[in-house]
Amino acid sequence: MRKIIVGVIGPGREANVESIRNAIQLGFLIATEGWILLTGGKNCGVMNAVNEGAKQANGLTVGILPNNDHSTMSTSVDIAILTGMGQARNNINALSSDLLIACGLGPGTASEIALAIKANKKVILLGLDAAAASFFQKLGPRYILVATTAAEAIDLAKNIINASDNVQPR
Amino acid sequence: MRKIIVGVIGPGREANVESIRNAIQLGFLIATEGWILLTGGKNCGVMNAVNEGAKQANGLTVGILPNNDHSTMSTSVDIAILTGMGQARNNINALSSDLLIACGLGPGTASEIALAIKANKKVILLGLDAAAASFFQKLGPRYILVATTAAEAIDLAKNIINASDNVQPR
Amino acid sequence: MRKIIVGVIGPGREANVESIRNAIQLGFLIATEGWILLTGGKNCGVMNAVNEGAKQANGLTVGILPNNDHSTMSTSVDIAILTGMGQARNNINALSSDLLIACGLGPGTASEIALAIKANKKVILLGLDAAAASFFQKLGPRYILVATTAAEAIDLAKNIINASDNVQPR
Amino acid sequence: MRKIIVGVIGPGREANVESIRNAIQLGFLIATEGWILLTGGKNCGVMNAVNEGAKQANGLTVGILPNNDHSTMSTSVDIAILTGMGQARNNINALSSDLLIACGLGPGTASEIALAIKANKKVILLGLDAAAASFFQKLGPRYILVATTAAEAIDLAKNIINASDNVQPR
Repeated sequence: MRKIIVGVIGPGREANVESIRNAIQLGFLIATEGWILLTGGKNCGVMNAVNEGAKQANGLTVGILPNNDHSTMSTSVDIAILTGMGQARNNINALSSDLLIACGLGPGTASEIALAIKANKKVILLGLDAAAASFFQKLGPRYILVATTAAEAIDLAKNIINASDNVQPR
Repeated sequence: MRKIIVGVIGPGREANVESIRNAIQLGFLIATEGWILLTGGKNCGVMNAVNEGAKQANGLTVGILPNNDHSTMSTSVDIAILTGMGQARNNINALSSDLLIACGLGPGTASEIALAIKANKKVILLGLDAAAASFFQKLGPRYILVATTAAEAIDLAKNIINASDNVQPR
Repeated sequence: MRKIIVGVIGPGREANVESIRNAIQLGFLIATEGWILLTGGKNCGVMNAVNEGAKQANGLTVGILPNNDHSTMSTSVDIAILTGMGQARNNINALSSDLLIACGLGPGTASEIALAIKANKKVILLGLDAAAASFFQKLGPRYILVATTAAEAIDLAKNIINASDNVQPR
Repeated sequence: MRKIIVGVIGPGREANVESIRNAIQLGFLIATEGWILLTGGKNCGVMNAVNEGAKQANGLTVGILPNNDHSTMSTSVDIAILTGMGQARNNINALSSDLLIACGLGPGTASEIALAIKANKKVILLGLDAAAASFFQKLGPRYILVATTAAEAIDLAKNIINASDNVQPR
């Protein structure tokens, strides 16, 4: 029985303090729910922080890396998927996640939110400014939710997972 | 000597009348400049219209298709690249274009603009509303330009190409 | 600390009885070693059998699917990575595995062995005829090993993993 | 009306003298037929030689590069498609070609022949030893043809193209 996968996306080196703090909490809470954490796998920013948070709660973490080696991988990634395909891997993140949480925003994250909408996936926005949130709500009205705290994002994620027919039980 | 490639991105079936009209003009003008037109290659919306416009001026058109066959290809595509990789091919569109012109907006187009910024490519926005244009200008301040007509977009494109060191002459 | 990943590749619907039997044993033994099993994830042939074997020993299984949904997934896959990129995902299988075991042969498997050699990965051949084994040994002399039983393949895998500097301990 | 694309695949730096000589002839003859030449696009080995041959006959050349920039591109490539996805681009070469000619052999080439068989594409082998040719004929009996000269390979290609229902006229 396949496991539920929650993707957390967000900036790398440009991540701000609030996004890092939210990411650590998201990772911890995702692991506590028994969900698998999926990220872009790199050793910086939101990717690194959310993986660290998940490991603090003994979660299982999957990193979908743009590289073809482990040199830039977060040491908190358990399962490293080396795609060697750069940012084209963003579409794998969108497709493989039962739902996504965007924790902060940068160009890579924006591409993943848009690809998730294209793939009919729900995305919970956390820490995006009002204009950015409004942009994505207009881009994919049926797919975008907004949270103001990590805990609220997890509550929204629970609702989505419970309501989903095509997500098997954990 | 490799040829200059201008990518035109935009909605498929959801494209509005203005985007279709702009796309036909863009295709015609791109071909007139002697640039190669690169699109997502499908037989609908902006992709189809811009290819038709380019063929009216005897241009050369390249379609980077998400599919693994020609069944959904625009008949105005000369060179069909079948990726079989769905929306992950959007990153190829961004990487392969010397610059991109976004003609209208949808989730796929938004992902391509964001991927282009990530790849340090200039993107000219045509026919996006002010809020969307503002969103992308904030996402990639050094990469986004705004045009109000197809002719203006081509003028901006000429400036970018002439200023570029790493684009070889036609 | 990332976990060791062993990729098992082999035919789908065209797999013969011997390959299926070997695959079940390989899965069981890989899980017993505490390694993660990586496959192409589909619900047929070697992919399905090896995942079933791994689950009999409570292993953790990762499926790198060519599809963009779960419709053709083995029900013994725990973690489904949906690539939506068809056979281009074969390169992800090669890159992400610390080593690979080829259990039987078909066109997809042959592409993965060749891609693994290209990626400097060791591949253990199990159940290939002498001509095919010889072909791959000539193609990548430093990368190809031959086993005659599942147990022997696992012994060879242990040697490779123990000798490897860039594979972290389990 | 889309143009006929013939893919030529073969070793890079490890290509032998015979393969280079065959590649130059293949490129010249493909261009003379009015077909588009598709290669992996790099500035070495068979890829470079076949592109040079095609340009001597004023052909049109498309390079599907593994990189995300033009730094390793053959200067005889007209249209550079930057995939940024490493060897996963080999599947694009297989899918996009109406047929392929393998000129020599290495691991990358072997992966492309196997992926072409998987994609139901005909592959003409030129300059492979008898054991390698036999291996691929067994792997894909309906898809593999063998030529002994570049001219013979082009004759076989003409037959395939003329017999094909799904290839539009030039």
